[in-house]
Amino acid sequence: MKKNAKKLVGVTLAGVLSTSVALGIVTTASGDAKSENLQPAHEAAAKNVILLVGDGMGQNQVSAAAYYKGSGYGAEDLIMDQFTNVGYARTFSHDNTVTDSAAAATAFSSTHKTDNGVLGKAPKNEEHHENEEHFNVDTVLESAEESGMSTGLVSTARITHATPAAFASHIGNRDEENNIAEQMLLNHDIEVLLGGGKRHFLPKDKGGKREDGKNLLNAAKEKGYKLIENKKELENADADKLLGLFNESHMSYELDRDLTGEPSLQSMTGKALNVLKDDKDGFFLMVEGGRIDHAGHANWPATNIQETLAFDKAVQEALEFAKKDKNTIVIVTADHETGGMSIGADGVYGFNKDVVQNVKRTPEYISSQFNKEQSNIAEIMAEYTGIKDLKKEEEQLIKTDEDAAGAIAKIISERALIGWTTTGHTGVNVPVYAYGPLSERLTGTIDNTKIAELISKTTSKSLTSLDLKEQVQQFEENGEITNHDAAQSLLIHLTTVGKFEQKGAAEKVIKHLTNFNLLLDQQKQKDLISTNAYDALTKGTESLLAKWQ
Amino acid sequence: MKKNAKKLVGVTLAGVLSTSVALGIVTTASGDAKSENLQPAHEAAAKNVILLVGDGMGQNQVSAAAYYKGSGYGAEDLIMDQFTNVGYARTFSHDNTVTDSAAAATAFSSTHKTDNGVLGKAPKNEEHHENEEHFNVDTVLESAEESGMSTGLVSTARITHATPAAFASHIGNRDEENNIAEQMLLNHDIEVLLGGGKRHFLPKDKGGKREDGKNLLNAAKEKGYKLIENKKELENADADKLLGLFNESHMSYELDRDLTGEPSLQSMTGKALNVLKDDKDGFFLMVEGGRIDHAGHANWPATNIQETLAFDKAVQEALEFAKKDKNTIVIVTADHETGGMSIGADGVYGFNKDVVQNVKRTPEYISSQFNKEQSNIAEIMAEYTGIKDLKKEEEQLIKTDEDAAGAIAKIISERALIGWTTTGHTGVNVPVYAYGPLSERLTGTIDNTKIAELISKTTSKSLTSLDLKEQVQQFEENGEITNHDAAQSLLIHLTTVGKFEQKGAAEKVIKHLTNFNLLLDQQKQKDLISTNAYDALTKGTESLLAKWQ
Repeated sequence: MKKNAKKLVGVTLAGVLSTSVALGIVTTASGDAKSENLQPAHEAAAKNVILLVGDGMGQNQVSAAAYYKGSGYGAEDLIMDQFTNVGYARTFSHDNTVTDSAAAATAFSSTHKTDNGVLGKAPKNEEHHENEEHFNVDTVLESAEESGMSTGLVSTARITHATPAAFASHIGNRDEENNIAEQMLLNHDIEVLLGGGKRHFLPKDKGGKREDGKNLLNAAKEKGYKLIENKKELENADADKLLGLFNESHMSYELDRDLTGEPSLQSMTGKALNVLKDDKDGFFLMVEGGRIDHAGHANWPATNIQETLAFDKAVQEALEFAKKDKNTIVIVTADHETGGMSIGADGVYGFNKDVVQNVKRTPEYISSQFNKEQSNIAEIMAEYTGIKDLKKEEEQLIKTDEDAAGAIAKIISERALIGWTTTGHTGVNVPVYAYGPLSERLTGTIDNTKIAELISKTTSKSLTSLDLKEQVQQFEENGEITNHDAAQSLLIHLTTVGKFEQKGAAEKVIKHLTNFNLLLDQQKQKDLISTNAYDALTKGTESLLAKWQ
Repeated sequence: MKKNAKKLVGVTLAGVLSTSVALGIVTTASGDAKSENLQPAHEAAAKNVILLVGDGMGQNQVSAAAYYKGSGYGAEDLIMDQFTNVGYARTFSHDNTVTDSAAAATAFSSTHKTDNGVLGKAPKNEEHHENEEHFNVDTVLESAEESGMSTGLVSTARITHATPAAFASHIGNRDEENNIAEQMLLNHDIEVLLGGGKRHFLPKDKGGKREDGKNLLNAAKEKGYKLIENKKELENADADKLLGLFNESHMSYELDRDLTGEPSLQSMTGKALNVLKDDKDGFFLMVEGGRIDHAGHANWPATNIQETLAFDKAVQEALEFAKKDKNTIVIVTADHETGGMSIGADGVYGFNKDVVQNVKRTPEYISSQFNKEQSNIAEIMAEYTGIKDLKKEEEQLIKTDEDAAGAIAKIISERALIGWTTTGHTGVNVPVYAYGPLSERLTGTIDNTKIAELISKTTSKSLTSLDLKEQVQQFEENGEITNHDAAQSLLIHLTTVGKFEQKGAAEKVIKHLTNFNLLLDQQKQKDLISTNAYDALTKGTESLLAKWQ
């Protein structure tokens, strides 16, 4: 909630919605192919939004976790598997078919495709350019703040890591996490921040990574945050604003978490909802299962599956809240898949799930238990992985591999029949699961920017060119704009308007809106557009012009 | 269409449907999580069913094909990407988390999980047993025949291969393709059979593989089939019954098809629809993109993508028909993913799509063009793959690899950044895309058997225990059965009934239905079930009993 919102926009959500209703837009029912599945424009957006991001979680990871849970050769449904409004999101970024987390998160935080590594900024050029210039774009968290909603960011990664950062910072290089911490904390007023990354809030002399000497934890206290550092404190915290930093870097993997005092992603989600839920203006909460991705990069199968299962419990927390609340949309997705993971590998059909089920700790932890002489490898492996018949060559691999943890994971993958193609990301479309008001708009194959578009319907109380675009699309659908080229032409004009809206370039917005109005007139004269559509779009254009003039 | 249906069931589809309507079952609207998304039972099933199976087509393959088509770093929507009712299907078989095509196809042809390698038969035991006994199960094609509908099977693989075979044969070993050809042709009356596999219809002395001396092509003629062998003949064919066998074995890959006289999957689909469409009782058509799988096994990236695109054109043909017809359900799915394919590999982010876009022929064809001295490798590679800077080590790989085609594909994969984890199948949930009446029932994460259940609503005109099960589920949903355990208990009884229905064991069906009736009485007495639900289920049970008595 932005307490001192700089710009309070006169048009309320109710206003926008009633405008839409007044347009008389009615579309066909669901059950049909994409273009026929638009919902009635008068259907209200949810009051609250919970976006859950499984970083690096493709359908491969979801399937593996469900089979892990199931008995015999079968699977047990995850909470994610219970959603019926599902889809596939394309994840490509502005400069690569294979995205990174920064560009993907910017896509679903802002509706903008950007270059890999860039946060909360979009490229100036449509085509990829070296040394691209980027301009700041509003994020859904920021529009929620503008609208007086409460907001929250929760992650098992550092809270300054790419996914949460894309909602509350504008920065050309995701690695500048000190800078991100500052922007996130000082330029916003986010009610709940929970995750790892304490080191980016403290100066070097306090054990942190900040070279500017700033102690952001003091700044946070001044802003009224209750600071918490462990599970107990999280449970007991009774405050309006929470800053929980539970680890210097990323939070511990779920498999090792019981060795620490860190809370689970589920309990962080529950607490966040508890803090945010009473805002009469609604809330926006983003929850990231940040370490599915790390286990994917490392090609650690059991760790990966446990992180997916821990994420699924956070989804459960969100879904249960939404089912009770009845005015909350829950969107579950991923930024990309990591690892090119598969069930079945090397030409062998099967999944020896007991191999991963028997693993009790991460490879990192297990390798830390080997003694200097490496004489206890078999024993330690038996204890923590359940492998009691470690082969000579497997032991040798662990001994000689520079990365002993990697060698352990490799042995587990091979025995379990889990395959990997990469230590990086892949370009497969990722799953989208949605529940609640307007969630049916995220079915089918969608671009990941569409997620931000839908969230904006809740967080952005002011009319934008996106609303007009949607109207044009619906009018074409309804046959009120009969000519496809005419509709395209209108959409292209509105895309241009949208670019300048984002840059805050009022003069250009007005110029292109005026052109849009002229185009409407021409199309009306040529009978390419119905009177109803013409009136509605003209009216919308006037409202938008009024906002910018 | 079964001209001489052995058993004509009195209960008509209209009868079943009106029963459901009479039950007064009304459920909540869509937009919610699984259990709340049941559709009104009175919504009618489609008249016609088109099931399209991309063999080995996971979301990886679909994504790669869409990016291949798109410009820059982006993707262009395939026809599949235009469906809004989408889901994920679990593919595990009765004896393996990773299925083969036979078990997967039996799941969606019959509603039964079976063991890998088995066609149209289900295992006797619930748990996996070595030397399992299997019993024949009805397939949706067979129930369509019983109901007087027209039927068709189309594939780019041998028509005797696992996927089509699972609809029209009952056989413990998928490799018995001679036997499959015989069952498919002689035990059924399928209007359209189009694909490869001619060798299994002809005796050895006619160039075929049959050791029993039978010439099934003669038998086919006697059954009234028009026999066709190439694209031209397909185009010109004007007959009620078509047997098109366009290759001795599998049909050619799309990349090499122009070298042959073979038709495309799209044109076979179009012709099949043309033959089937006028049956007033409706039709069931299965279309398989059979060679996506083969290119996946071989890890051939460009070939794999082209097969997916060719399949997508068949989907287009089906979807266009359904949009016009308005009474056809189109279901697109896969049996499993093959290859563990990924966009991005070996730690590198990207997809060099131009590398695959430049490939003009399959690795098989390309390798066949090398001369004996292997002196023209660079030249041939330049001509057919566009690679003009073949490296020394790449040429060496081609020269020394036992499998030159495999080496070519490896070079293309590496350059394009396409990864693979296996030469076999993987266990990831596969996409489901559906359009038309009741298609919204296939959204979310479903078991692949659910596809056959939905198809049965069209093809099976007689009441079965499945209908009663659905009613129980809906009554629980509506709160007419308030106790979950009570509903479960009813469902378990009906599962038992279902098993004996499939085995045709009338006595056992009657016994367990009688028990089910007693259970209903008890639940009614304990007020666990509403009067409405009790009456409806009792009435349904009576109808079912009448059918078996």
